[in-house]
Amino acid sequence: MAVSFPPVRRREGRPSAEVVAALNADLAARFGNRFTASQAVRQAHGHTLTWLENEPPDAVVFAETRDDVIDLVKLCARHDAPVVPFGVGTSLEGHVNAPHGGVSLDCSRMNAVLAVNGEDLDCVVEPGVTRKQLNEHLHDTGLFFPIDPGADASIGGMAATRASGTNAVRYGTMKERVLSLGVVAADGSFVRTGSRAKKSSAGYDLTHLFVGSEGTLGVIVEIALRLSGIPEAISAGTCFFPDVRSACDATIATIQSGLPIARVELVDTLSVRAFNAYAKLALPEQPMLLVEFHGTQSSVAEQVRCFGEIVADNGGGNFIWATKPEDRTKLWQARHDGYWAQMTLRPGARPFATDACVPISRLADCVEETLADIAASGLVAPIVGHVGDGNFHVSPLVDMSNSHEIDTAEAFASRLAHRAIAMGGTCTGEHGIGQKKIAFMEDEHGAPALDLMRRIKAAFDPQNLFNPGKVFAV
Amino acid sequence: MAVSFPPVRRREGRPSAEVVAALNADLAARFGNRFTASQAVRQAHGHTLTWLENEPPDAVVFAETRDDVIDLVKLCARHDAPVVPFGVGTSLEGHVNAPHGGVSLDCSRMNAVLAVNGEDLDCVVEPGVTRKQLNEHLHDTGLFFPIDPGADASIGGMAATRASGTNAVRYGTMKERVLSLGVVAADGSFVRTGSRAKKSSAGYDLTHLFVGSEGTLGVIVEIALRLSGIPEAISAGTCFFPDVRSACDATIATIQSGLPIARVELVDTLSVRAFNAYAKLALPEQPMLLVEFHGTQSSVAEQVRCFGEIVADNGGGNFIWATKPEDRTKLWQARHDGYWAQMTLRPGARPFATDACVPISRLADCVEETLADIAASGLVAPIVGHVGDGNFHVSPLVDMSNSHEIDTAEAFASRLAHRAIAMGGTCTGEHGIGQKKIAFMEDEHGAPALDLMRRIKAAFDPQNLFNPGKVFAV
Repeated sequence: MAVSFPPVRRREGRPSAEVVAALNADLAARFGNRFTASQAVRQAHGHTLTWLENEPPDAVVFAETRDDVIDLVKLCARHDAPVVPFGVGTSLEGHVNAPHGGVSLDCSRMNAVLAVNGEDLDCVVEPGVTRKQLNEHLHDTGLFFPIDPGADASIGGMAATRASGTNAVRYGTMKERVLSLGVVAADGSFVRTGSRAKKSSAGYDLTHLFVGSEGTLGVIVEIALRLSGIPEAISAGTCFFPDVRSACDATIATIQSGLPIARVELVDTLSVRAFNAYAKLALPEQPMLLVEFHGTQSSVAEQVRCFGEIVADNGGGNFIWATKPEDRTKLWQARHDGYWAQMTLRPGARPFATDACVPISRLADCVEETLADIAASGLVAPIVGHVGDGNFHVSPLVDMSNSHEIDTAEAFASRLAHRAIAMGGTCTGEHGIGQKKIAFMEDEHGAPALDLMRRIKAAFDPQNLFNPGKVFAV
Repeated sequence: MAVSFPPVRRREGRPSAEVVAALNADLAARFGNRFTASQAVRQAHGHTLTWLENEPPDAVVFAETRDDVIDLVKLCARHDAPVVPFGVGTSLEGHVNAPHGGVSLDCSRMNAVLAVNGEDLDCVVEPGVTRKQLNEHLHDTGLFFPIDPGADASIGGMAATRASGTNAVRYGTMKERVLSLGVVAADGSFVRTGSRAKKSSAGYDLTHLFVGSEGTLGVIVEIALRLSGIPEAISAGTCFFPDVRSACDATIATIQSGLPIARVELVDTLSVRAFNAYAKLALPEQPMLLVEFHGTQSSVAEQVRCFGEIVADNGGGNFIWATKPEDRTKLWQARHDGYWAQMTLRPGARPFATDACVPISRLADCVEETLADIAASGLVAPIVGHVGDGNFHVSPLVDMSNSHEIDTAEAFASRLAHRAIAMGGTCTGEHGIGQKKIAFMEDEHGAPALDLMRRIKAAFDPQNLFNPGKVFAV
């Protein structure tokens, strides 16, 4: 017997002017001055950060409570207009764009830390809390929230895109750090996806289904997070290698040895040059690893010693260590400013940021092939990466007035995605699918897995209300 | 606009004799002597391990390949008969029972280790590989698979029930260890739920959806697992406390201190007595913690020293250490034989095994209230637990010929489940829902979350082919 199953509803174009007018009237009545249809605000709530086109919503609502979100979802359902969740807008893949119009649901004012349960090493926050805000709030507790994607992203956005960053090699990604979520579903109901227990075998794992769903299944309004204890000792440093392969090999050996390294970032020669220019540093212009170790004093000393041996075995050296907090901050600031530093390599150009992730055994191959591809394409494309996870970023700097350059960069990004997939990896380690990576979903997952994902979307959001045009081409 | 969504199809009773006869004829033709309808084999493939009633399938098929599974699923779909995946039958919650008849799909012969990728610290196995078999296979690689639920369970069954056990406090549960799955879906298609990359932000997390789905969404036929390096040094030991609360408090302090303890098991006085009787030991009859530390020689020494201070601060002591492998094995054998040891406390009775998990801050409260409940109920009910995760097991020993005792034990288990849920925990930390815990699903998750789970089931398995009568009451 066959049982029919409804497909994901396809949206075409944007709501009509009549629908927008009627919806906006209802939004104004419900949300007062927390609703706006001003062009400037709408544009600021579309994608602004990379080369992707800005596609503004029809309206913006600044939510302050869970009930605001519920009412907004119900109003949008009634008018059949999309809901596009918005945190602080640091997505690189167009997640906040509104290709089918509708309302940008700005969660930045939902920024309360609702609970810190020090004994359980967890906390509960609203989606607009940013990672830096959370760590400031935790300052006196001896705990910290370790996920660090570089940008001061909102926790809601980080959960929605399964974000990670420099610390993930030791502390995991949002997948590992989100304990449970509170979500507003398509019918306006409030769903809690799990308890505060550290583990459970009770039913389907809704938490992990919402983590990384990019706002397409519901609106995250509460996040329970695992925290970590601030380590007694931290040591950060840099070391340099004759080529990218040796730096990758040293990373692979470190991971395989079981050394609990907290951060290990690859910075390629071009990026080192950019760091030097932007942050007035005088680093040797060679492939560099930027590393950090956490633990007790004695364990950090032991880790540093072991890592030093591995680096030497792989032809690297020239260590510069930073144990004082201010020196560490300076070092990491350079890394976090990498995005801006890289832009100095070609003033006026925009970064065509992309990321990929492969099993660590293929990391050196993937980076080397990518460097060769960059050279052959004639692109200026610096590489940095969270290489302990096999994850790296490439940012071709593109003159956006030159359509040939855009095509070249798009073709390069596509080859990189397929290369990573062919090596047993993924087209995105941490940026998400958004709009432009939809094209790689079938190559990566295969048609049967993609069919199951579409079934989930259709089952949770039959009207295709939530963030249409992301993850799937509908 | 409302879009209708089909509910989970409800099954009533078992297939008719005609359906069974027709299905069995097709199974015999396809599977030859790997098909059987013998009563003994059918009963052995129903639940046999606890007090739950044995509900045998109509037939048993021993699958050897992915294509066997695909063909079986298609045949069962055609005859509208359930498919009940079976590993080695160590489930405690009736997962392998066939309340609606159908075919038990025995995966024990699908027991090949398909790949060990030492460089990536991962491996790929078939579902019938048991955890001990895998660790023997890994013996010379320097790697091990750390999840240890006690029983020599199959990896497929462990993935399906989100199993964990003694090592989870350090190494995580199956949720953290499964990298991706190969699954046969309801339409017979083969789905791969992820790549071998350590992290990905590409689309919905199907892996975690299948982990813990208890065979209700598809048949797991391949599991990629993260492995860990065998630690340089291991030290195990026991220590004793005046009461259960001090043992729990020492555990809480250990976790909060960030000490990377590899195992921390609570054994209550009654269980210590059972261990002594069963394994001819002479342990002090007091609440005991059984602990293990992994790391380098120096880090283990440091951990042991810190833990010793915490134990002393909480009124415990009387350490017995085992650093030699054979002494450690003896210690852990006693813990793993706990199930059998506990049965000696009341010969002829059957264990009414149940588990619960709470945030660690509530662990002492939950265990103390449960001990008081046991005393008030007049039950003989030993407690052991993976207390580093806030997870513990209670096994009332019940005379199955006495219906009053069965009712008393059921009422006790129900109070325990609700108690854990009320403390922010879960009705099962690692055994799963199976049949008898369905009753707690709504209390734990709330109606909206349960509705989403049902939607997933309906979307993936519209015919309700896979393991009906588990997780949901359909």
